[in-house]
Amino acid sequence: MIFIMNNIYDTANKLEQELRETEAYSDLKSAFSTVKADSEASEVFQQFQEVQMKLQQKQMSGEEISEEEISEAQEMALKSGENDLIKELMEAEQKLSTLIDDLNRIIMKPVQDIYQG
Amino acid sequence: MIFIMNNIYDTANKLEQELRETEAYSDLKSAFSTVKADSEASEVFQQFQEVQMKLQQKQMSGEEISEEEISEAQEMALKSGENDLIKELMEAEQKLSTLIDDLNRIIMKPVQDIYQG
Repeated sequence: MIFIMNNIYDTANKLEQELRETEAYSDLKSAFSTVKADSEASEVFQQFQEVQMKLQQKQMSGEEISEEEISEAQEMALKSGENDLIKELMEAEQKLSTLIDDLNRIIMKPVQDIYQG
Repeated sequence: MIFIMNNIYDTANKLEQELRETEAYSDLKSAFSTVKADSEASEVFQQFQEVQMKLQQKQMSGEEISEEEISEAQEMALKSGENDLIKELMEAEQKLSTLIDDLNRIIMKPVQDIYQG
């Protein structure tokens, strides 16, 4: 007799596949391709990502972020948002991010239950 | 004819259930109960959590963390680790955290693929 083990990794892989099949995912994928295919949008987006990454790294390492850096990031976000292709990309990112947050909230519920129980 | 929609939320809920059934999860749950039932361990653990939370909030808000605060946290971690019950709890946390990181790496792979593709 063979027991079919319900492997949690199989379920994670199933979720991975289903995530790829969502509209939010395919929208983000095509929005990203569209930006990459446009040299201007691509350049602005790359700059935007660099500024964001720099701030994120500072935050992770506990370094203080200067007001100048914050205004640089805000300026960059504004500039990026003026580009229609990047704007669409950001909206697509936001939608997928909302879906992923929802999924994470579900999956992480058991851990939360331990500490609140 | 009824089409059975493969709902990504159903799969997330399945993963949530399976996470509860893992050894790593039940070990953490019992380690936490054991700490809570012991007044000394419980108090030290609470202090440890408060220090960690304070640092985390500072990090999130971009505030600089002083050397004094770092050494306070390290001292607290040491003190906590000297308590056998908290030590077991921390080890159980580490094991579950490794499992969750693995699951997240799988689930987030599609998103990574977009930006590296």
